[in-house]
Amino acid sequence: MDPVIPKPLGDVIEALEQLPGVGPRTAERYAYYLLKADQDKAGQLSDALAGLHKSIKYCPKTFALIDASQKLSPLYSDARRDKRQVAVVADPFDIVAIEKTGSFRGTYHVLGGLVSPIDNISPEQLHIEELIRRIDDDKVEELILATNASVEGESTALLITQKLGKRKLKVTRLARGLPVGVDLEYADQITLTRALEGRQAL
Amino acid sequence: MDPVIPKPLGDVIEALEQLPGVGPRTAERYAYYLLKADQDKAGQLSDALAGLHKSIKYCPKTFALIDASQKLSPLYSDARRDKRQVAVVADPFDIVAIEKTGSFRGTYHVLGGLVSPIDNISPEQLHIEELIRRIDDDKVEELILATNASVEGESTALLITQKLGKRKLKVTRLARGLPVGVDLEYADQITLTRALEGRQAL
Repeated sequence: MDPVIPKPLGDVIEALEQLPGVGPRTAERYAYYLLKADQDKAGQLSDALAGLHKSIKYCPKTFALIDASQKLSPLYSDARRDKRQVAVVADPFDIVAIEKTGSFRGTYHVLGGLVSPIDNISPEQLHIEELIRRIDDDKVEELILATNASVEGESTALLITQKLGKRKLKVTRLARGLPVGVDLEYADQITLTRALEGRQAL
Repeated sequence: MDPVIPKPLGDVIEALEQLPGVGPRTAERYAYYLLKADQDKAGQLSDALAGLHKSIKYCPKTFALIDASQKLSPLYSDARRDKRQVAVVADPFDIVAIEKTGSFRGTYHVLGGLVSPIDNISPEQLHIEELIRRIDDDKVEELILATNASVEGESTALLITQKLGKRKLKVTRLARGLPVGVDLEYADQITLTRALEGRQAL
């Protein structure tokens, strides 16, 4: 037995080290914090984690995360939302970001990632086939390709437009340009090029 | 119910946000990672956390963290370690740092923090009385005050020397000076002043 770190604590540190971006020192700090804090805090996290997988599932239409007791995501089943307008995102949390703007009333389709040869993610692993089916079933009129402004995001968007074939629908993507509040002089070249290309009439 | 984040996932995010330095975005990232990863990972962390408080306790002599099945810290009970030399540290993980050097064969005493009016930590909350008792019981010959080189660390060290009264023992503290591998020009003024004061004959 390690004379310095007792095993039960070592187990917590080891499990915390699995989290993305968490190294040994950070894991130690988290574990020690939980140990010093009220027992309730560790218990609360423990309980929440124990129930995580069995109480969450993916919506079969949008692939957003839903409660296991739900059939469809409220973002899809809500009658006030326009099913003919679909924002295509890579991950479920991208929906959170768009919903926070409060300026989108359509529905979503989560791809479950982006095409990436480096991370070994092929188009077949993404929910693209299901998207095509939704477009036909729900008579989708506009597809907003809300993927990241990265190489993977752009190539996934391109792939989707190719898969659409001869379907007649409006395909848009999020505008690229200067982030609000950022000085022009600090913008990178590519962003500035995109901002010039997408310039708008006043 | 939040239509975007299902409650079981929200619970995990909320619990993770309690960790020091973890904001909403990081908590979301951790939670989503655990959800996407094998169910075992969340389960492993959940189990480790559930057992944390009941399987860890403080060593009654050194106040280091020990397994609940142990009576004393092996760092104290190990006969090869010199009980007459005691390194005084603020937190249990400071022991880990010193042990990693492999160049200390004495024992430890964990104060459980540092005197800090800002954080509302008074001397009575620290294990100083127990340290004084150990000094008398174990006939301690050297006390190494291995507290941080901060205002709190220095004032706690000073307080301990005062509490020692007329006891005759060597009291030392960790050397202050240039960290190994750091350029002199990048050292701050105070560190450089301490390095000059503590200069050693070649």
